[in-house]
Amino acid sequence: MKPLRIGLLGLGTVGQGVAKILLESEDLRYRAGFDLELAAAADLDIERPLDVEIDPAVLTTDAMAVCKSPDIDVVVEAIGGKTVARELLMTALSHGKSVVTANKALLAEYGYEIFSAALDAGLSVSYEASTGGGIPLLSSVRDGLVANSIGEFYAILNGTCNYVLTRMVADNMSFPDALKLAQQLGYAESDPTFDIEGVDTAHKLTLLAQLAFHTPVAFDKLRVEGISGISITDLRYAEQLGYVLKLLAIGKCVEIDGEEKLDLRVHPTLLSAEHPLAAVRDNFNAVYVVGDAVGPVMFYGQGAGRMPTASAIVADIVDIARGNAAQTFRTLALFRRAGGATPVLPMDDVQTRYYIRVTVLDKSGVLAAIAGHLGRHGISVAAVHQKEFGTPTVPLVILTHRASERAFRAAMKAIDDEEYVTEPSTCIRLESDT
Amino acid sequence: MKPLRIGLLGLGTVGQGVAKILLESEDLRYRAGFDLELAAAADLDIERPLDVEIDPAVLTTDAMAVCKSPDIDVVVEAIGGKTVARELLMTALSHGKSVVTANKALLAEYGYEIFSAALDAGLSVSYEASTGGGIPLLSSVRDGLVANSIGEFYAILNGTCNYVLTRMVADNMSFPDALKLAQQLGYAESDPTFDIEGVDTAHKLTLLAQLAFHTPVAFDKLRVEGISGISITDLRYAEQLGYVLKLLAIGKCVEIDGEEKLDLRVHPTLLSAEHPLAAVRDNFNAVYVVGDAVGPVMFYGQGAGRMPTASAIVADIVDIARGNAAQTFRTLALFRRAGGATPVLPMDDVQTRYYIRVTVLDKSGVLAAIAGHLGRHGISVAAVHQKEFGTPTVPLVILTHRASERAFRAAMKAIDDEEYVTEPSTCIRLESDT
Repeated sequence: MKPLRIGLLGLGTVGQGVAKILLESEDLRYRAGFDLELAAAADLDIERPLDVEIDPAVLTTDAMAVCKSPDIDVVVEAIGGKTVARELLMTALSHGKSVVTANKALLAEYGYEIFSAALDAGLSVSYEASTGGGIPLLSSVRDGLVANSIGEFYAILNGTCNYVLTRMVADNMSFPDALKLAQQLGYAESDPTFDIEGVDTAHKLTLLAQLAFHTPVAFDKLRVEGISGISITDLRYAEQLGYVLKLLAIGKCVEIDGEEKLDLRVHPTLLSAEHPLAAVRDNFNAVYVVGDAVGPVMFYGQGAGRMPTASAIVADIVDIARGNAAQTFRTLALFRRAGGATPVLPMDDVQTRYYIRVTVLDKSGVLAAIAGHLGRHGISVAAVHQKEFGTPTVPLVILTHRASERAFRAAMKAIDDEEYVTEPSTCIRLESDT
Repeated sequence: MKPLRIGLLGLGTVGQGVAKILLESEDLRYRAGFDLELAAAADLDIERPLDVEIDPAVLTTDAMAVCKSPDIDVVVEAIGGKTVARELLMTALSHGKSVVTANKALLAEYGYEIFSAALDAGLSVSYEASTGGGIPLLSSVRDGLVANSIGEFYAILNGTCNYVLTRMVADNMSFPDALKLAQQLGYAESDPTFDIEGVDTAHKLTLLAQLAFHTPVAFDKLRVEGISGISITDLRYAEQLGYVLKLLAIGKCVEIDGEEKLDLRVHPTLLSAEHPLAAVRDNFNAVYVVGDAVGPVMFYGQGAGRMPTASAIVADIVDIARGNAAQTFRTLALFRRAGGATPVLPMDDVQTRYYIRVTVLDKSGVLAAIAGHLGRHGISVAAVHQKEFGTPTVPLVILTHRASERAFRAAMKAIDDEEYVTEPSTCIRLESDT
């Protein structure tokens, strides 16, 4: 049988991981049922020492030539970024090669163009490694849960944020200290903004929601909030109340006035300590999906790193070798949506529960006044937590029942305008069944 | 495009679930990319009321005719048992139809015959629903983790046992009471022997180990112990020591004297309360798999029940409709193992840690004597737990380091023969990294 000839673009962390598996995994051919040949490996710098020994005859600095070469069957893009990578993928597709990539930013923002080019050519774009790293997540949602209408999912998709939040709680660290530790351990980049502010999670949410809800999703429609404002104080109150804070990507398909809408958002979220996602610690990722037939399922594993990412990329390559990728790709409903994309619910209309910490002067009538503000906006209180402090100002922690973001913001504005509120209140959304 | 014509055998719990999804799921065609037609539904009794409305023209009592019919493309076996089901599947395959089944007992014991018939005919046997119910488990291990050499996995594969163990701990119930409750709630059969004694888990272990380790596995080589001997006393001690008890299917690929062997067993196992499997409660299943590239991954969901099982069966049907199932099936390495099946490690040679509860006369020198017995068999003590009781006999709880089953059994025989040991000791295996 002819081997599948792979053109690998980029020999950074992930690219070298892919090369390692292709070149060093003794049983891969046996497990895959096919010979997978690293036929070309392109990088701007092919002189530097690598962690994997690649035949110099295979190395090249000309990635574009790899994309055009008649001697390459599949192109694996491990360069990253949204300019060169995009051009290379489009070139490979126009030269009849299916492509594999982990580039979530590119696919979340320019996916439609790339997916369309592949569909038109009868090829495929495989991107299992883009979301949830090594976890067989996208394939499970796409194929394993195909019998289900998926109602909602909750996902921890950024290992940096989860590591930082885990350390804050476990080691009583401040956010800046936990972030510094994550950077020292290589779990956070020197500029961690994309991770910490939720942008990376939102890219992944875009890709996951498309497959789960079978519709194109516009990345720029998502509400995205990060974890840089989280304080250990709130994590401790949450703990006492039986909750754990996670940066979640949330996807729900809701019906408003007879019309389906997608509730898609990324923000710090309190979850019951009993929820399976609450036990996902350190740099792990996990996705909790609820299907109408299967009920809840969860997928857990390492969402980043050289070998986990390479594991998913090589699985995609095998899927192409077996001849399955293109057949699956052309059946994906997200490209054939009658009536266009399902609209995204505006944030103002999102319904959720809230945790509020208000710092107030310790005088009588304050709790009643705050409850009054909430009540006037139709928000009912589920729990109140106030300790005796013996200080002039005291923290008042309130959990609400479900309310719309619009009503909640209005109530909080009224509360924070009161003279007995001495500093801006902290608000964290809370997901639960009630 | 021509619809895929499905012949469904058996309209019990699972069969009706499959019919429900095929007939009632509005978006299924759209998600699958294919028309799936319930072309025939066979049951011995087609007069009784069903929970799903099936066109009478489709109903038949002649399952064998469905397997032979030129108007059927795929046969779904939802009858169960090892006699009629086996004959029907072999007939369907000999008539050119790929088959889908959730029948773990049949495939664990007669799989090789059925798999071989399918391979020889260029067809496929799909059995995602057999192991882990609705969780996309087998496909994830087979395809999603194909880049990995899998070193070990730990799996909760029987919802009945997990429900019973959860209730015992959470509600302080005895085993018989928890089992009775499980029966009342429909989580346990009226004769629960197969579930409780680990046989069902062992069937699933056989199928999972074949795919994870790419070798045929003989079901009758597995060591199988159930949970009927578990007492709440030991669950409480375990809790105090930071452990949780689960009925686990364990699979490891170990190298002994340069030869690969499979360590495969089903037994009650203590796990650290921090382990992701420890948080798997009630009737849920989960599988924790460690691959050399991806590291640990976990899959979690409902392992049984009408709709979860039907969810997996319909996913298999879609995989056939897309033309992928047969292509994947013929690449499965487990049938092409050079040099035959990987041997199973005899239980005597298995290395693990142990929890021991010995009931002894409360007199001096007893602990030293017991430690001496263990030491003489090369077993070192990791922890000892003994409280002041003020009674003539006291429980002594010991956690050991790793030892072979052979050495451990010999040491326990010597200990239980001592006159200061007043009742047979309890021994539970413990899995941890040390």
